Amino acid sequence: VTENPDRPAPRTVRVGLLGCGTVGGALTELVTGRCDDIAARTGVRLTVSRIAVRDARRPRQVQLADAVLTEDPASVVTADDVDVVVEVIGGIEPARTLITTALRSGKPVVSANKELLAHHGAELFELADAHGVDLLFEAAVAGGIPFVRPLRESLAGEDVTRVIGIINGTTNYILTKMTEEGWSYTEALAEAQALGYAEADPTADVGGFDAGAKAAIIAGIAFGVALSAEDVHHEGITEVSADDIATARRLGFQIKLLAVAERFDDNSVAVRVHPTMVPEEHPLASVRDSFNAVFVEGRAVGELMFYGRGAGGGPTASAVLGDVIDASVNLVQGSHASLGVFTPASLRPQSELPSAFYLAVEVADQPGVLATVAGVFGTNGVSIRSMEQVGADGDATARLVFITHAAREADVSATLIKLRSLDVVGSIDSVIRVLGDA
Amino acid sequence: VTENPDRPAPRTVRVGLLGCGTVGGALTELVTGRCDDIAARTGVRLTVSRIAVRDARRPRQVQLADAVLTEDPASVVTADDVDVVVEVIGGIEPARTLITTALRSGKPVVSANKELLAHHGAELFELADAHGVDLLFEAAVAGGIPFVRPLRESLAGEDVTRVIGIINGTTNYILTKMTEEGWSYTEALAEAQALGYAEADPTADVGGFDAGAKAAIIAGIAFGVALSAEDVHHEGITEVSADDIATARRLGFQIKLLAVAERFDDNSVAVRVHPTMVPEEHPLASVRDSFNAVFVEGRAVGELMFYGRGAGGGPTASAVLGDVIDASVNLVQGSHASLGVFTPASLRPQSELPSAFYLAVEVADQPGVLATVAGVFGTNGVSIRSMEQVGADGDATARLVFITHAAREADVSATLIKLRSLDVVGSIDSVIRVLGDA
Repeated sequence: VTENPDRPAPRTVRVGLLGCGTVGGALTELVTGRCDDIAARTGVRLTVSRIAVRDARRPRQVQLADAVLTEDPASVVTADDVDVVVEVIGGIEPARTLITTALRSGKPVVSANKELLAHHGAELFELADAHGVDLLFEAAVAGGIPFVRPLRESLAGEDVTRVIGIINGTTNYILTKMTEEGWSYTEALAEAQALGYAEADPTADVGGFDAGAKAAIIAGIAFGVALSAEDVHHEGITEVSADDIATARRLGFQIKLLAVAERFDDNSVAVRVHPTMVPEEHPLASVRDSFNAVFVEGRAVGELMFYGRGAGGGPTASAVLGDVIDASVNLVQGSHASLGVFTPASLRPQSELPSAFYLAVEVADQPGVLATVAGVFGTNGVSIRSMEQVGADGDATARLVFITHAAREADVSATLIKLRSLDVVGSIDSVIRVLGDA
Repeated sequence: VTENPDRPAPRTVRVGLLGCGTVGGALTELVTGRCDDIAARTGVRLTVSRIAVRDARRPRQVQLADAVLTEDPASVVTADDVDVVVEVIGGIEPARTLITTALRSGKPVVSANKELLAHHGAELFELADAHGVDLLFEAAVAGGIPFVRPLRESLAGEDVTRVIGIINGTTNYILTKMTEEGWSYTEALAEAQALGYAEADPTADVGGFDAGAKAAIIAGIAFGVALSAEDVHHEGITEVSADDIATARRLGFQIKLLAVAERFDDNSVAVRVHPTMVPEEHPLASVRDSFNAVFVEGRAVGELMFYGRGAGGGPTASAVLGDVIDASVNLVQGSHASLGVFTPASLRPQSELPSAFYLAVEVADQPGVLATVAGVFGTNGVSIRSMEQVGADGDATARLVFITHAAREADVSATLIKLRSLDVVGSIDSVIRVLGDA
């Protein structure tokens, strides 16, 4: 790509960067390395003019060019020589205040902050619209995967009914290692920590909080509703055993931590994060290691999947850069993207959601037990798709493994309570949802 | 989504449709069914005002509302009551003339016409830019998969080095059935024809022409270069045998028809379509049946994949609708998207391209043969990654199966010529490329 002599000289857009850690550093390097090419393609020349950091004297690997380093982030969002603000510091405050100030000053903002957007997205999008500027956040949902823009723009006319994501790389790495290497949860977590995929306190990842925040953002833009991370039901992967994974594989499934955002025919929505048995022929089953993927179901388009790196400096900076270019081109053209109006979400209660389940039940190995157990499912309105008995002949107990058709979660709960009350039932070892048709 | 009372009343954008077959009919239905929701989200109300068809008296399933049906497509592209032109008739002419007229009249155009864009894309993009209007073509490359917009916008700053696509659903269906059901090529083709996936004359699909045209468009936008379908080297799937597929599976590969667009360090590019052995753990290996997928490699973002339906009325109409909304919003805002300037492509000759190969060689089963055969690879600069001997002991001939490291195609050709000249070599049964690192 070379510049067209007929094309007007590129207009310079100056980026003010809040935070210069892994992502901010990678972004600065990308802007420096790619600005000629970007100028030739888009007519916009990017430059990083100001960078707010916690400690300006700390030595840095990246070449900061002529950008002004400051420890005062508030000075960046109002600076005259900043046209677009990029926020990669994370957390609610001071990010929320800084972004609010930037938008009020008429400056477009690009943010990678899932926590902030999951809790205060609707309010910030409205503020951006009111001031006629962009608030873009591709990197906040699935790292380097272009998903927010295709969902907002390419699928703007599509009736999206369900979005299913593997949107936490740490847990996908752990589950992949448990599946492919036969590691225990503890071993896989330790390796994830050694590789830097998991924090010393892994709760945000393994407890499903991180995926829940991202799922709230996804549901908001997919369905045009205002909801927050608190509206997401989430379960983590700490209860998934090596035995569950082995049984799942034998039955033709992979266990994945899925975020599921659904809209039902009555326009109610539900967002939940939980370990799920995914049929091996489903595209999400082959998403391995720390990769992420988002699977979309729409009435006209059918099934789509977007796959890539959900974290890491390079991929995240790539997504931020795409947004910076978009905001810059819009700024030069005097236009901006809008998310439209978010209506309050009508949330369907968890107990009313349809789910298929995998259940492993220890029972006394005696005549009539299967009929008794199966009868409990039936009287509670839960239909059985498949059943098999596991365990050597002659044992005093047998293991029954059930997969149900989709049933109301409340009906499955009632089934479990009744089963536990039976003398012939020893224990219920596994209760894992199974991915099925919407 | 409901309309915001503070939001200005939606501005109506009138669509003129060229062609009302499967895609045009599905689009008309989508616009009718989704226009309220689209208006609420984007502030633009779409309506189909004119439709050009071959036979206006033919009964049609779709409700055409108040649109004017005409057999004169030229009247649609210049009509005062048409704001955006959608071309879904296909082929070079009259589509090229009609689109040219529309762009010259200042009307944005959305096209699903891969043949036209693969041959005259650069010229038409330049014309659109010169008239300050959009020419969008999401549906021309991978049907319903949002890929062109993410590549153009989300990855505008990314240094994309390679794009690998399964972009022909017919051949992917045939190869999947040969792999999973053990069908012969002839059986799988017959079934594809019965299902309507393949034409009576299947040459365009099975010969790799369709994939080649799409690959030319992909390479153009990925690398910002002007090239056409004639610049694409293509081989079809007609030579792929059930035996090749069985051997590939045994070695851990799936055979797929891949389109590969690469840019090398010297900025030369190459685009080729050929059957390829894909390692089973690669995301493209699990793209089954008539699904399509495009895999992207970029220096910052790493690996991405976009997966979905590459054909069919609903998915294609969904992609067209996304473009129509984009063009309409741009029209209302007075802006337009630009592909930037396409430079002439520096094409690297096929003989200079790096490829790993799978080769099956029938040899006399006698001492020293392996050393002789392996020596031919070495003297021609082709490095062997793995070799195994197949066939029962005591046979007069043995089958040697090689997988090479990436080598110049010219060196592999020289190796094959030399091998064929050897007395101990009976025949070379299979020569299939193997997907490797760029």
